[in-house]
Parts: sequence; structure tokens; C-alpha cells
Amino acid sequence: MLRVNGPRLLSRLDALAEFGAIEGGGCCRLALTDEDRAGRDLVVSWMVDAGLDVRIDAIGNVIAQWSPQGTAPGDKAVMMGSHIDTVRTGGRYDGNLGVLAGLEVIETLIESGQIPARPLAVAFFTDEEGSRFAPDMLGSLTYAGGMAVEEAHDIVGIDGARVGDELGRIGYLGVHPCPGPVPHAYVELHIEQGPVLESFNTDIGVVEGVQGISWTELVINGQSNHAGTTPMAMRHDAGYAAAAVCTFVRDLAKEMGPPQVATVGSLHMIPDLVNVVPGRATLTVDLRHTDDKVLSEAEGRLAHFSQHLEGEEGVRIISRTLARFEPVAFDPAVVSLVERAAEGLGHTTRRMPSGAGHDAQMLARVCPAGMVFVPSVGGVSHNPAEHTEPEDLVAGADVLLHVVLELATR
Amino acid sequence: MLRVNGPRLLSRLDALAEFGAIEGGGCCRLALTDEDRAGRDLVVSWMVDAGLDVRIDAIGNVIAQWSPQGTAPGDKAVMMGSHIDTVRTGGRYDGNLGVLAGLEVIETLIESGQIPARPLAVAFFTDEEGSRFAPDMLGSLTYAGGMAVEEAHDIVGIDGARVGDELGRIGYLGVHPCPGPVPHAYVELHIEQGPVLESFNTDIGVVEGVQGISWTELVINGQSNHAGTTPMAMRHDAGYAAAAVCTFVRDLAKEMGPPQVATVGSLHMIPDLVNVVPGRATLTVDLRHTDDKVLSEAEGRLAHFSQHLEGEEGVRIISRTLARFEPVAFDPAVVSLVERAAEGLGHTTRRMPSGAGHDAQMLARVCPAGMVFVPSVGGVSHNPAEHTEPEDLVAGADVLLHVVLELATR
Repeated sequence: MLRVNGPRLLSRLDALAEFGAIEGGGCCRLALTDEDRAGRDLVVSWMVDAGLDVRIDAIGNVIAQWSPQGTAPGDKAVMMGSHIDTVRTGGRYDGNLGVLAGLEVIETLIESGQIPARPLAVAFFTDEEGSRFAPDMLGSLTYAGGMAVEEAHDIVGIDGARVGDELGRIGYLGVHPCPGPVPHAYVELHIEQGPVLESFNTDIGVVEGVQGISWTELVINGQSNHAGTTPMAMRHDAGYAAAAVCTFVRDLAKEMGPPQVATVGSLHMIPDLVNVVPGRATLTVDLRHTDDKVLSEAEGRLAHFSQHLEGEEGVRIISRTLARFEPVAFDPAVVSLVERAAEGLGHTTRRMPSGAGHDAQMLARVCPAGMVFVPSVGGVSHNPAEHTEPEDLVAGADVLLHVVLELATR
Repeated sequence: MLRVNGPRLLSRLDALAEFGAIEGGGCCRLALTDEDRAGRDLVVSWMVDAGLDVRIDAIGNVIAQWSPQGTAPGDKAVMMGSHIDTVRTGGRYDGNLGVLAGLEVIETLIESGQIPARPLAVAFFTDEEGSRFAPDMLGSLTYAGGMAVEEAHDIVGIDGARVGDELGRIGYLGVHPCPGPVPHAYVELHIEQGPVLESFNTDIGVVEGVQGISWTELVINGQSNHAGTTPMAMRHDAGYAAAAVCTFVRDLAKEMGPPQVATVGSLHMIPDLVNVVPGRATLTVDLRHTDDKVLSEAEGRLAHFSQHLEGEEGVRIISRTLARFEPVAFDPAVVSLVERAAEGLGHTTRRMPSGAGHDAQMLARVCPAGMVFVPSVGGVSHNPAEHTEPEDLVAGADVLLHVVLELATR
């Protein structure tokens, strides 16, 4: 059975990681910085060396296409891809794996002499992480027609720089239009960025979709009081109410069961003194589920608990939605294909949602899409300590190869 | 029945409040600052005008004594007092009331021609609030022999100033020794600084003692993780564990019943991001009770819950005692006397603990001591909005007058 050139893939991952390298083995290649440009130039040079047709679009996405003998100019490509920008303290595989494995798949096929019936493409999309320019997944969003190019160009980053200016400055303000050509299908290989595959000792994650996300900020106004002189029954303790929300959402997620997750990541008490009953507290609640109806139910139960708490503790709770993204379901046929391909290669598999956002969810707006996950050691990501074992990286690329072969011959 | 001169007391409270006045009607007279000196000079001038023997001791406490005809030089005085330093955003009655009411009691008796059988004294003690120099109640602690004068002089404040130097600078490094003369008894009038009297519509609080205080800091180490990709069952969420401690101590206080109080006033989550499971959390627990055995039981149950939580959530909890003060019980005879005096004046009374610390607890180490509380509107204190109705201020002074008369004639 056909396999990718594992050593070539691994050595390219290492070579790319040298641009923006940071202590601990990680990378800092914030979108459209000089480090990002250097990484882009390297990947483009490999694409060109492989004989691909490399196109840069108006938002700086780079799409490299192989149109084998027998395909027509208008044929839709089977596209692979991901991103090569990183967070400030990123790892070396997040994004990069999907891009370089896509390139590896195409080169493997060129070298094998197996001619697919459709063009193949590999893309890297601009500013997936969103660490410099919000929103995240900007390049794939624009590619899929979710944002106008002009609007995207006018986005100003955390350092005051404008997307359009930075694209020009680093030489990646391309001439090809956005939205881009609609692919026949899109498949993205990515590290899991979570602990599930490792803990179940599973080789390959078959990603069924991306969780919907609901972020709520709660500002709780109670009454600041002396911790010694105020009897318990007379308190309106904003800090206690915040803690009660925190334990409530934990209980809620447990009761609703997987894949419901709920997190209070940020909580502040005011005045934040050991001997003063907090008069105000602010906290955030992050709720995620793959089913929008269930996610809405969780939101509703949080709102109901907040109301109950207002009466119980004598506090006033102001709730504000910080972000709300609907879940994305990947194409069932692509999902099954990923599963079959992995099992055909002898791998253990597990169907799972993605807890993080990926370019694939933007492409899913315009074509059948799917994802392949490989295990993250310790579930660690967005951290220089991010790691995936070499054999898992290569296994993921092999699965990608066979999924793409199937999609391109149907 | 004899009464104090209410208008004189109220006008002196207003006059003293002009030194260090801040917006909203409050005061900022941090210990041994220029504002404190100005306030001290004013009160000393009133003491001198009243013909009292004013003495300043080595820690800057000011004790003004009236030795009526018939008393001998060695007779122990019945002492009243409190403090005139304030927190940074203090009110106008906290401390000041006890000092100026004590002066008013002495002047009323001088003017009435009623000659007590013992000397009477009124004191204001240095640095009760502890806002500039720790520990709080420094002056009364040193007066009662709880700290050596040399050690007290060497304390360095939040602004780098040394107590001994500041005493000299403002002219209050007195020649009288510490520990000071042991009083026959000590009685302190103070605002409640809590909501109990107001909410029970009661005139006078009969203070039975001061709550013991236990401050614990808990540092919880869990594992920082992605809020989307980490299933609930795989989390070691330090933020959740902190919230669980917070709701536990609330339940504990409710179950143990009054006067047990429990407060989490400070809580921090790290990294404190909406989409990251907290890897570390720090919180403080303030437990108070009038019975040291019960307070220790509460501490034990907190420790037991922490241990349980470590296993349950897979976190590591490091616990550190920040402060521990045993409860103080006031002299039962003085407590009864306060109750009888208040009822004799037609006031409703309520026996209660003090939730806050007071100079009286230091004097209780060396002589029979007690306190009289008057209501705080809304329970507010350490705030410019602190308020006690004028009739309550005067009622408290009248109770103090009759308690002292009784103590001085026994």
C-alpha cells in the first residue's frame, strides 16, 4: 500500500520550525510578521520545486495545485491544507503538519506514478490563529466568502498594523481573487490539541465536526461588607455567587455528559481583600457542544441558574455574550472515508469532535470537508512543549494520502 | 438621670472630622501622618481645656486622667478610649466616637458635681487600624505589654517610614513608659461596623467578646488545558477546585450556624483566560468564631475538605496560615453592667460578638473590659459613607457614662 516519504515530511517540519524558533522547541510566527514571511518563502520554494502551480490570493492565502495529465482546466481540486502562522508561544506542528503533509501527499503521488482523476491542491491560509489580527481563521473565512477582502484588509492588529499593508510589506498581497475557487472536497490533517486520543491509546481521530462555542461574561453585583461583622444570612456576596456559577456549570456538564464541556477560566473578585465580602465579581463561562440545540439548552440552564441565584443571594447579575459560534458538522461521506482509510492502514480510530476551531470549518461552508487528528502528547498545545510522536505524524499523513486518493478517483 | 452634653459631643466629632477630610464626608488620617498629628493636637487641646492630666507614652498613646477629690495617687482609673487614626478611606465615627464620648463622660461628670470614687481616664491608642503600620492595634498592644516598645519603634510602614521616627517627627514620642498603668476597668464605645443592630432595630449592642480569626491561603495546582479539547473527566481544574472551596465554606458556616462566619474575599485564577482551564488558583479563607474550639473545628473541616478535593479533582493544594487570633471574652460583670445600664436608659439591647478587632481586646489582657456598640447604617464601615444617627451616638455616650459611673463607685 502506498505510503508517504516520512523522513522528508519530518525533516521539512524541522526546517520550518527554525523560523521564529523560541526556547523549548516552539515557534513564534505571528501572522504577516517577518518570521511568517520567512516561513512562507520556505514552503513556497518547496511547492515550486515540486512543480506545482502556486497562486497567492488577495488575503495572502497560498494555494499550490497539481493538475495531472487527463484533468481539465475547470476541474475542481481535492484540497488539503491548514496554516503556518502560530500563536506567540506556539508549537511546531499546529497547522504546519497539515500543510507539509498535504505537500508530501502530492509529491508522493507524483513520484508514485499513480495519476488521480482530479487536480490536487495544498493551501496555507493566512492568520488562522488570530493572535495578531482578529478574527481567527481570517484567511479561510475570506477564501470561503465569509468576509469581503476590503474588510479583511482594513483589520488592525494588536500592534496597530493593518492587514492589507502587512500583506504588501511581506510580498504576499496576491492577485488571485477571494472568494477562491470552490474545491471538490477539503481534508485537513491536524494535531488533536487535546488529551483524548492519547488517553484512549488511539492512533487516529476521525473528526465529525467542530464544537459550537458560547462565551458568556457574568458581572455580579452584590454588597461589599466586613467579613467579621456581617452575619452569613445578611450577605449579598458576589464572590460566593461567582463560585456557585462555577460549580454549577461543572455539575451541568457532568449531568449533560460528553461532548458537553463547560469552563470558568477567568474570575475576579472586587475589592479582592481577605477580610472583605466581595461586592462585585466578574467571571466568564465557556460552553461547547457539537449540537447547537444542546448548546442552547446549556445556555438556557445557565441563564436560569443565574436568575435563581439573584433571588437566593440578593445579587444582581448582568450577562453578556462575548462570542457565539454554531457547531460545524463535517460531511458524513468524508468522515466515513477518513475512518475507512485509517482502519485500512491498520490504525485504531475514534470518532470525535474538534474542541478547537480550524480552517476546515470555513471550507465546510463551500464543499464537503473533513479532518484527521493525530495524538498530542499530554494534550498540550499552544505551548513550546507541544509534541506529537514522529510515527503519529507520518501515520496521519498516510491517512491523508489515502483519503485524498479516494476523493480524487471517485 | 444624668445625661451627656449631646450637642457638644456631636460638634466635636464634626470638628475632628475636618482633619484629613475626604470626599463623601469621610476621613483619611493614617497613623502618625501630619493629618493624624493635627487630629491629635485638637483632641489634646480639649483634654487640657477640661483640666485633665494628659500623658503621652513611648508608643504615642495619649491618656488623659481626671483624679477627683478624695482619690489617691495610686488608685487605678476606670479607663475609656479608642483611637483617632483611620483607614485610607475611613468614616468619621470609627474610633473617634469612643475617644470623644470618653472625654464627654468625664466633662459631664465634672460639670455635674457627681464625684466618682475612682480616677477616670480617656485614652486614644496609636495605630489601631494598622493601615500604615502592621500589626493593627499596635498602641494598645504595646500598652498592655504584648510588644516591647523597641520592637514597636522599629516597625516600618507601607511608605518606608519607621514608627519611632514618625512619633518623634509629629511630636508624640512621649516619656511615659509602656506597658502603661493597669486600669481598674476599661470600657470602649464603638460603632458596630456591621448590620446586626440596624436589622434587629436595636439601640445598643452589648459586646460579649471579640471573634477569633483564622486566615488561610490556599494555593491550588492543577493542570492548565484547552477549554474546548479537554473532556470534563480529564480535567484537573484549579479554578473549579477554588470555587468548590468557596461554596464549601459557605455551606459550612450555614451548617455550623451563627456566630460562625466564613468568607472567601480573594480568588485568582491563572492564566485567567476565557478558553483555558485554570492551572493554578489562589484564594483566601477568613473564618471567625467566638469559641476557639468551634473555630478550630471549622479549620479542621476546611483542611479535610481540601484533602478530599485533592483526590477528587487531581489537584495539589498547599495551605498556609496567614493569621490566627484566639477569641477574646469580655468580663462577664462588665458585660452585664453594659446591658443593665442600657436598659436602665430605656434602650433595646442585644448581646453580640464583635466581628472586628478593637483596642478593648488588648486591654482585656490586663483588666476587666467591655464594649458598647451603636448601630451602623447599612452596616457600612471603612468607607466615607459610614454613618450612625446622631441620637444613637449620644445614646451610646449616655450608656458609657452610666457604666463608668457604676464601675467607679463600686
